[in-house]
Amino acid sequence: MRVAVDAQGGDNAPAAIVQGALQAASADLEVLLVGRGAEIEPLVGGAAHVRLVEAPDVISGGEEPTNAVRSKPDSSMVVATRLVAQGEADAVFSAGNTGAFLAAGLLSVRRLPGVLRPAICQVLPSLPRPTLLLDVGANAEVKPEHLRQFAHMGSAFASEVLGVREPVVGLLSIGEEPGKGTPQVVAAHALLAADPGLRFYGNVEGRDLLSSVVDVVVTDGFSGNVALKTAEGAAHAVMGLVKQAVGTSWRAKLGGLLLKPDLLRVRAAVDPEEYGAAHLLGMRRPVLVGHGSSGARGVENAVRFAGLAVRSGLVEAIARCLGL
Amino acid sequence: MRVAVDAQGGDNAPAAIVQGALQAASADLEVLLVGRGAEIEPLVGGAAHVRLVEAPDVISGGEEPTNAVRSKPDSSMVVATRLVAQGEADAVFSAGNTGAFLAAGLLSVRRLPGVLRPAICQVLPSLPRPTLLLDVGANAEVKPEHLRQFAHMGSAFASEVLGVREPVVGLLSIGEEPGKGTPQVVAAHALLAADPGLRFYGNVEGRDLLSSVVDVVVTDGFSGNVALKTAEGAAHAVMGLVKQAVGTSWRAKLGGLLLKPDLLRVRAAVDPEEYGAAHLLGMRRPVLVGHGSSGARGVENAVRFAGLAVRSGLVEAIARCLGL
Repeated sequence: MRVAVDAQGGDNAPAAIVQGALQAASADLEVLLVGRGAEIEPLVGGAAHVRLVEAPDVISGGEEPTNAVRSKPDSSMVVATRLVAQGEADAVFSAGNTGAFLAAGLLSVRRLPGVLRPAICQVLPSLPRPTLLLDVGANAEVKPEHLRQFAHMGSAFASEVLGVREPVVGLLSIGEEPGKGTPQVVAAHALLAADPGLRFYGNVEGRDLLSSVVDVVVTDGFSGNVALKTAEGAAHAVMGLVKQAVGTSWRAKLGGLLLKPDLLRVRAAVDPEEYGAAHLLGMRRPVLVGHGSSGARGVENAVRFAGLAVRSGLVEAIARCLGL
Repeated sequence: MRVAVDAQGGDNAPAAIVQGALQAASADLEVLLVGRGAEIEPLVGGAAHVRLVEAPDVISGGEEPTNAVRSKPDSSMVVATRLVAQGEADAVFSAGNTGAFLAAGLLSVRRLPGVLRPAICQVLPSLPRPTLLLDVGANAEVKPEHLRQFAHMGSAFASEVLGVREPVVGLLSIGEEPGKGTPQVVAAHALLAADPGLRFYGNVEGRDLLSSVVDVVVTDGFSGNVALKTAEGAAHAVMGLVKQAVGTSWRAKLGGLLLKPDLLRVRAAVDPEEYGAAHLLGMRRPVLVGHGSSGARGVENAVRFAGLAVRSGLVEAIARCLGL
């Protein structure tokens, strides 16, 4: 299997991207590192299971997505997606300009036929079981039928990639009752409830996202993005308060020292790098969207996650679920 | 000053409501406890600065708001809002059925003339300074002009009640650039940026809600409610993980014991009861909306918060800001 990696995308590119890719590469998973050979080759240093693919251009974070993709066909991001389109790679990962990556993916990897809107699906580190949230930003506005497709795609992801048996789907709203939320959400509730192919729980609220009430939560890309970033911000703020508390006195410092390994485990559990990347679901091949701030550990996990998606037959399962 | 309190509203009514009200009552702040005298009187036990107002009916959590308010004019919630309308109380608090309380408030306390949509404003315990988030649930959908009014109302609240000089306003979106978000959010960005009466920062994201980037964040009631409940859920989940970590070994238990007072401070800092209630802004008198799960500490803080709103001249400041 081969995973194409945009070596120039993200705040820590190319060093952290290359390092993470090397850590994930194995005999079963060849990494195609796409970027400027002169910059990347010294970082690779002849490591095994890694191949360089030259791409002289780079799309930066601030560029307008569609223009950037059109005007830079030789950028690392566009070349990486093209490798998938041409069958030279089985999946693609980038931590660069998200809008541009979505545009490049739509243009060359392309949607599965019948998929109305691809959606970005994020694994939330809820306990005891992870929860999938989609869409977290590909579509600021959605129609009820889009949410129904998201429910099927998320269910397929939960069962095929995460091994959840009979995943349960919730609809994000602002109250448990079917009548709560915007008219679109209320209409979506009725549509989801009437679909015999789904195990629909009903509405869930923001507080349920991290408590494993359901396996999959569907929402529009605006609310989903707000929820995801709010959860990350809140977890970060609380860990910051705990860290601060540990420094307040000699007693607290000693307590903190004794607790350190346990607190590090907590931090790792809520770390966005744990899953490394979100999946753009509804495409013909796995497309993995990394955080701009991805470090080597995040990239390593993302590339492995891409491999898992390919091996699990995620794309075929989504096509089946949607009856395509 | 007199604050009307719905003694029968909320999961822990009437005991926790009465207890919190008694703790907040003082020579400067008389509490009018509205509810079933037979239940409430024994709990009050002749305490000073508290007066009972009989209301035989109760609106429960599951009732349809408008019907409930119309059909139960003698419910504790409706009587409490009527006390404000009749000038017998200066502010009103309920932890009961939120939808019904909004309906009752709109019906008898009424909007300030010119206010298009009242909004629920929540104080988020961000550090180093709190952040106001509105709307968190009164209006699932809003127009750009509504968001502009929310910005003015939130600014007035920040300066008059929290003492923030020249409060800065952000617009919740899914990216920093003015073009990010739904068409409504993009239009609102332009409207806020063009208003000389506001100090507009630009777009903020979910992760900025708890890091004091701005003083006031405006959004629609759907996204605001999702963000608020997600932040509460994430903080709760992380504190749960920390608590769990403290029990894993003898070393961790000892560390936890040493850190206990500091961790309790962290928990208090992220406790939704810290501010006790959200304010429904845009009304003729302060209307305070409590969490259904409010305990005595939350109610005490909410009643004090109501008193602060009255003393600070919040309503008059909002009318001034909106040019009414």
